[in-house]
Amino acid sequence: MFTDEYFMRLALQQAKEAYEKGEVPVGAVVVADNKILAKAYNLTETLTDVTAHAEMQAITAASNYLGAKYLNECTLYVTLEPCVMCAGALFWSQIGRVVAGARDEHRGFTTRNVSLHPKTEYLCGVLEKECSLLIKDFFRNRRGCNFN
Amino acid sequence: MFTDEYFMRLALQQAKEAYEKGEVPVGAVVVADNKILAKAYNLTETLTDVTAHAEMQAITAASNYLGAKYLNECTLYVTLEPCVMCAGALFWSQIGRVVAGARDEHRGFTTRNVSLHPKTEYLCGVLEKECSLLIKDFFRNRRGCNFN
Repeated sequence: MFTDEYFMRLALQQAKEAYEKGEVPVGAVVVADNKILAKAYNLTETLTDVTAHAEMQAITAASNYLGAKYLNECTLYVTLEPCVMCAGALFWSQIGRVVAGARDEHRGFTTRNVSLHPKTEYLCGVLEKECSLLIKDFFRNRRGCNFN
Repeated sequence: MFTDEYFMRLALQQAKEAYEKGEVPVGAVVVADNKILAKAYNLTETLTDVTAHAEMQAITAASNYLGAKYLNECTLYVTLEPCVMCAGALFWSQIGRVVAGARDEHRGFTTRNVSLHPKTEYLCGVLEKECSLLIKDFFRNRRGCNFN
């Protein structure tokens, strides 16, 4: 039951909540021992804050829950490949594992030659189509409505 | 009066507040039209949060003050060259100018081949010695006291 797909579906639910708020639909969950420690979605528009990416909030919430700065035993599931900022934060967190959905060929950290922590395992492509379609759909609609 | 050195001294005051709290002493201020919009210092230990770097808090506070996500008209003064995470956040903010004190040859964004936004002007080395000495002094004392 507790597969990568299972947890990515929870991250996708978070992304859909972002979509409904008019936010770029990216969602994240942090898991340890099959337990959800944190759920978050992108809130950059709502909070008027470029740092409010799903991953950043999820890292902060998981650390808050654990009372610990380092997330060595945790896995972050995120529907879109992290950007440079989020990869930098994940580096500092020494998180055990990062699982991403859709690739971000423009702003993703792998394209930008940024590294996660040497201790961090990285996997990309879990529920890739669903994660990718949600974002493409969002931008298609946004352009169609001339929505800022 | 309102020189880069003037504002870097204010960032240094912030860094000293961090030092007194046992935090790695990095301070930042955000300025627009010679007006201080935000002041912050590193709070990663106090908040148990790796994302609580001075720059991240300063970006959030300045956006909050302005009610705007983008900081095109602002300058961030920071006592240490930003890391990859903070450079990524500064990229998203499209900040007009970043002025740094000491170089960070290990974790600084320039060493890691990360770029700020094409619109952002970058200057490093303002009050470099003072900014650098404060950090060196902190780590010397921390090792001496076996302080975590």
